[in-house]
Amino acid sequence: MQAARIVKINEPLEIQELSIPKPRGSQVLIKVQSSGVCHSDIHLWEGGYEGVGGQLIKTTDRGVKYPLTPGHEVAGFVENVGEDVEGFAKNEKVLVFPWIGEGACPACRVGEENLCDKPRSLGVYNEGGYAEYLLVPSYKYLVKLGDLDTDTSAPLSCSALTAYGAVKNARLNPNDNVVVVGAGGLGLMAMQLAKATTGSKIIAMDIDDGKLQIAKQNGADFIINSKKEDPIKAVKELTDNFGADAVLDFVNASKTVETDMQMLRRRAKVVLVGLFGGALQLNLVTMPTRAYQIIGSYTGSMNDLVELVSLARRDVIKPIISNRFKLEQATEALQMLKNGKVIGRAIINP
Amino acid sequence: MQAARIVKINEPLEIQELSIPKPRGSQVLIKVQSSGVCHSDIHLWEGGYEGVGGQLIKTTDRGVKYPLTPGHEVAGFVENVGEDVEGFAKNEKVLVFPWIGEGACPACRVGEENLCDKPRSLGVYNEGGYAEYLLVPSYKYLVKLGDLDTDTSAPLSCSALTAYGAVKNARLNPNDNVVVVGAGGLGLMAMQLAKATTGSKIIAMDIDDGKLQIAKQNGADFIINSKKEDPIKAVKELTDNFGADAVLDFVNASKTVETDMQMLRRRAKVVLVGLFGGALQLNLVTMPTRAYQIIGSYTGSMNDLVELVSLARRDVIKPIISNRFKLEQATEALQMLKNGKVIGRAIINP
Amino acid sequence: MQAARIVKINEPLEIQELSIPKPRGSQVLIKVQSSGVCHSDIHLWEGGYEGVGGQLIKTTDRGVKYPLTPGHEVAGFVENVGEDVEGFAKNEKVLVFPWIGEGACPACRVGEENLCDKPRSLGVYNEGGYAEYLLVPSYKYLVKLGDLDTDTSAPLSCSALTAYGAVKNARLNPNDNVVVVGAGGLGLMAMQLAKATTGSKIIAMDIDDGKLQIAKQNGADFIINSKKEDPIKAVKELTDNFGADAVLDFVNASKTVETDMQMLRRRAKVVLVGLFGGALQLNLVTMPTRAYQIIGSYTGSMNDLVELVSLARRDVIKPIISNRFKLEQATEALQMLKNGKVIGRAIINP
Amino acid sequence: MQAARIVKINEPLEIQELSIPKPRGSQVLIKVQSSGVCHSDIHLWEGGYEGVGGQLIKTTDRGVKYPLTPGHEVAGFVENVGEDVEGFAKNEKVLVFPWIGEGACPACRVGEENLCDKPRSLGVYNEGGYAEYLLVPSYKYLVKLGDLDTDTSAPLSCSALTAYGAVKNARLNPNDNVVVVGAGGLGLMAMQLAKATTGSKIIAMDIDDGKLQIAKQNGADFIINSKKEDPIKAVKELTDNFGADAVLDFVNASKTVETDMQMLRRRAKVVLVGLFGGALQLNLVTMPTRAYQIIGSYTGSMNDLVELVSLARRDVIKPIISNRFKLEQATEALQMLKNGKVIGRAIINP
Repeated sequence: MQAARIVKINEPLEIQELSIPKPRGSQVLIKVQSSGVCHSDIHLWEGGYEGVGGQLIKTTDRGVKYPLTPGHEVAGFVENVGEDVEGFAKNEKVLVFPWIGEGACPACRVGEENLCDKPRSLGVYNEGGYAEYLLVPSYKYLVKLGDLDTDTSAPLSCSALTAYGAVKNARLNPNDNVVVVGAGGLGLMAMQLAKATTGSKIIAMDIDDGKLQIAKQNGADFIINSKKEDPIKAVKELTDNFGADAVLDFVNASKTVETDMQMLRRRAKVVLVGLFGGALQLNLVTMPTRAYQIIGSYTGSMNDLVELVSLARRDVIKPIISNRFKLEQATEALQMLKNGKVIGRAIINP
Repeated sequence: MQAARIVKINEPLEIQELSIPKPRGSQVLIKVQSSGVCHSDIHLWEGGYEGVGGQLIKTTDRGVKYPLTPGHEVAGFVENVGEDVEGFAKNEKVLVFPWIGEGACPACRVGEENLCDKPRSLGVYNEGGYAEYLLVPSYKYLVKLGDLDTDTSAPLSCSALTAYGAVKNARLNPNDNVVVVGAGGLGLMAMQLAKATTGSKIIAMDIDDGKLQIAKQNGADFIINSKKEDPIKAVKELTDNFGADAVLDFVNASKTVETDMQMLRRRAKVVLVGLFGGALQLNLVTMPTRAYQIIGSYTGSMNDLVELVSLARRDVIKPIISNRFKLEQATEALQMLKNGKVIGRAIINP
Repeated sequence: MQAARIVKINEPLEIQELSIPKPRGSQVLIKVQSSGVCHSDIHLWEGGYEGVGGQLIKTTDRGVKYPLTPGHEVAGFVENVGEDVEGFAKNEKVLVFPWIGEGACPACRVGEENLCDKPRSLGVYNEGGYAEYLLVPSYKYLVKLGDLDTDTSAPLSCSALTAYGAVKNARLNPNDNVVVVGAGGLGLMAMQLAKATTGSKIIAMDIDDGKLQIAKQNGADFIINSKKEDPIKAVKELTDNFGADAVLDFVNASKTVETDMQMLRRRAKVVLVGLFGGALQLNLVTMPTRAYQIIGSYTGSMNDLVELVSLARRDVIKPIISNRFKLEQATEALQMLKNGKVIGRAIINP
Repeated sequence: MQAARIVKINEPLEIQELSIPKPRGSQVLIKVQSSGVCHSDIHLWEGGYEGVGGQLIKTTDRGVKYPLTPGHEVAGFVENVGEDVEGFAKNEKVLVFPWIGEGACPACRVGEENLCDKPRSLGVYNEGGYAEYLLVPSYKYLVKLGDLDTDTSAPLSCSALTAYGAVKNARLNPNDNVVVVGAGGLGLMAMQLAKATTGSKIIAMDIDDGKLQIAKQNGADFIINSKKEDPIKAVKELTDNFGADAVLDFVNASKTVETDMQMLRRRAKVVLVGLFGGALQLNLVTMPTRAYQIIGSYTGSMNDLVELVSLARRDVIKPIISNRFKLEQATEALQMLKNGKVIGRAIINP
């Protein structure tokens, strides 16, 4: 089978010919139809991301090994199953949960494998979906798609799941004012999900008027262009001068979080999601006196993914797909995403 | 009646003669027996505390008005009641909940008046207990003490309540490793409370061997002198190299929190309680990838205080009282506390 | 002022001339515009409701005293305020929270006054809103209505609040199948609320095809006429033979709950809301082996009401008003409701 | 290897010679040292338990197949491992979590395999530990015992786990009054656990003065002999006439639950655990008006078991072992338990 692999950092991905894995035990072999292209794939390609003081946090220091087939947003058909697999037969259309854990750590024990101590995520620590076939360690990590098509479903397993995890971590109530920072793919999905599952009041924040208009169609009650107006003043005005009850920051850069911290109501939660990086000068006394919470949010659980697919099958949420690529165009897809030229989600169809 | 009041910042408190308030409606007048002396009284006396970059956060900017009678840890006897008071008669021995809110904000609506948008705390925004009598706005803010004496009970309403709020915010489970930073009055109480209500494994951290020995008697399973050994390495060794599941930082200074952030297991909670101040360089990417939570914790609710008194009445927890002062010694009491010469809690007996 | 009062059980309400109360302290006098007519007003009128074995549970045994002005769903304008009232001035349009507690019990302490040990609900234990004016004990129990009109808002404080409390008690997730038993006023509101705040899959059950059609417009994904088809079989078919994850029973009669218990998935929650009464033969062993939960749900909290008004102001939920009466028609309104001739909600406009 | 198996209902267990299983994949073979004898083993032996109206609920209708090797409380040493096993080597002393699910249902997805839709529990639906060797489906179901011995540890996986699940389901706070009905093995363990992890006030209820004395040593603050005094009146007296905040019923018979329902404070939770059986006439209207919750509690999760072992390793809880049997005495052990002659827990040592 063919796979697009990162062999050397920052160099074009190589199309390599690999042998097709044979599933045993609970394993399932998937014939990949759609593989989403994610910002974190760029970090894998570049070999790291920015930490405090501009310093690079290396992927290899976090356990990533090259050559690596990236791709953790994978939908396709069951091709073959191990002898212990139940409930899944050849040609079943499925979505793959990629955030697999080692199974026995405290997070795994309560079904939060995405937060495992020793993660084995597909397309990160194990071979991923930029390939014709993908070996999944157990049928437990598959969700049946029914009528949903694979292209729009693939991003549910990372892009939408990360947005959903953030919405859940904010524990929103119907009268809460929540600011969503960044009206890109994740932010828009977070707005759809907050609208569909919490009843809260949504304030979209971005520097692009076009994206903010799309935000309005995706559930935002209010929009703020933080380039054109003072975002802190704008949030205060929308909230009777109290500030936001929650901020979901899908950028998570020094500048956005610094602003976030100034638009908060007492008791507010700041949910940090993006991987842009950098550092924040955190005022320590303010944390207890204002009773703030800063919550790091990382993807979501298998159970969250089942809920997402349930919402998508009823058209409650709608992922937005914009660009489609062939396997041999994988480098091109990553480059376009890196250059900010992808609106919605890019998909590779091997 | 006599009251010890802060009239000018940093100058000795003045003993003033004030008229005894007359309770109406739901109000209750308390004859003060015991009034705890708290670190935050020093902030009121000094007119502020340290924010980012050494800059002073002024108490007057947060709504404090002088002259002020401090004192928010108050126990005594009911002296007189308003016409709507129920269930409390003259001479009932009571503890006062001082963290009173305006009643109608989102926090007050769910009984978390300590986190009110417009707080009216006794001894901070309203006259407090460094006085012979204290007017309490409603009998709802009183807890009956039964056999408990007023001296040991007074610190329950702030010192112990703050410790309890922190323990609750950490949401500890029996197999969690929790590091308690600072084995002073609050830290020791947090250890007692974590032991009595969570079953978690407690690691006490301080720079004073004497305090660490007392920690052992108050519930600590392990102790670390962070001056003598590398605290990060020590925590890793006690936790199979995983790190702590939670840290309760009762100092909350730049240096302690910087260390806290390096001893964490994935998914860990850092509960910031102390008001020492300063700033932290927070690595933003680490928040989502490691799924950390930083939680500001500010005192506790009326319901928490009822639970604390219930535990104290059964001897499950035991506040430690060390020094007793008369009303006219209020300045001396504050000065001793400021100089670090109070072990346990100082009490003023008007 | 005029008030329609229950003087003798089961006899026509009397229109009496009473003096207008004068608010003091935190009290507020409301000029009543709209007062909802609720099924529980019929229980007050009849002097009780049915317990086990057809035996009457008397309202007087539960602390109700006659003569009584019923009416706990009240919206109107502020007419006059006590000297301690803040944030509310004459002519402010408001909704009244009627489920007032004594303030110091464990439920009141966490803002759940609706579950108070010694309730003082308006229109039940204290004078209610079938009158020109209503005295409310504190401005804390008022919610500003803004653009909402009083007729559609009045039922939010009981009918909608009870539905909302039930939805919250079921703790629904997006992939849950929830059966709503009874597509009357409360059931329809529960469907709207479950749709707007949980994303779950809603199965409406009733014996009236007309109501079931309205259910479809109010958020039901599926409908079952339990008179025409076997409800247990129908639920099983809609849930891959697993059964429902939750049942909200707005009838709560022997027959409906007996059926409820047979349509449950393991781990299911049965939320009992209605006051129809009777008894259930509960199979005890099944409770642990199937891990069922039976949850009694009684109205909702002040905080819930604020959330409801927030949802209503954004048109996310829409109460349905059907009949309007004058104060002197109060008996007629109760009789029509008793005879099942009210679709939606009847309102008295004094 | 030898195994004591139920071949025919109610007839003596047969000692059969079976081949030793060979672990593959994630499977682990355990050399059994200690196998607890549980009341539910008697139900397996008798072929069922009592439902409503004295009717037998058959084990075969719930999916049990005979011949069956019972035994779900198993501790021993790792004998052999499959090729995918990590972190466990030969001779490691371990406790087995027996409440295994099929892995992909909603309960399994969040780590609550004990509540699985299609359970595969060891010693119930699969071969258990009344044998020399036990095959465990995955190393994920093992907990390392360290210094704990296998005899006292074995009951942690059912007896203690069931008690712990009940305590958790009651969600106790430090000021709650909790009644524990039945001071047998599970009840005593529940008292130890409530004491160690909640700080609540514990009222032990039984008909045996001897057991009640042991209850006092295991954490009970108060004891009630429900044969000698009116249990309802006694609970009211201990609770200022309010009633209990929670009842944990480890008998769960018609008579005990009928009494439970009369000793409740508003908002109380009744946790049903025992499998004694029978039916309750449940007063339906009381459920909403009093806001009661009836919660069925079934064993506990793998994560709960890890917490239990953590508590046991620190001597916070101490299971009580009373009788030891050889494998060929299995029938005798069951008979003694059935006759009520086992105080604490009986263990089979194969």
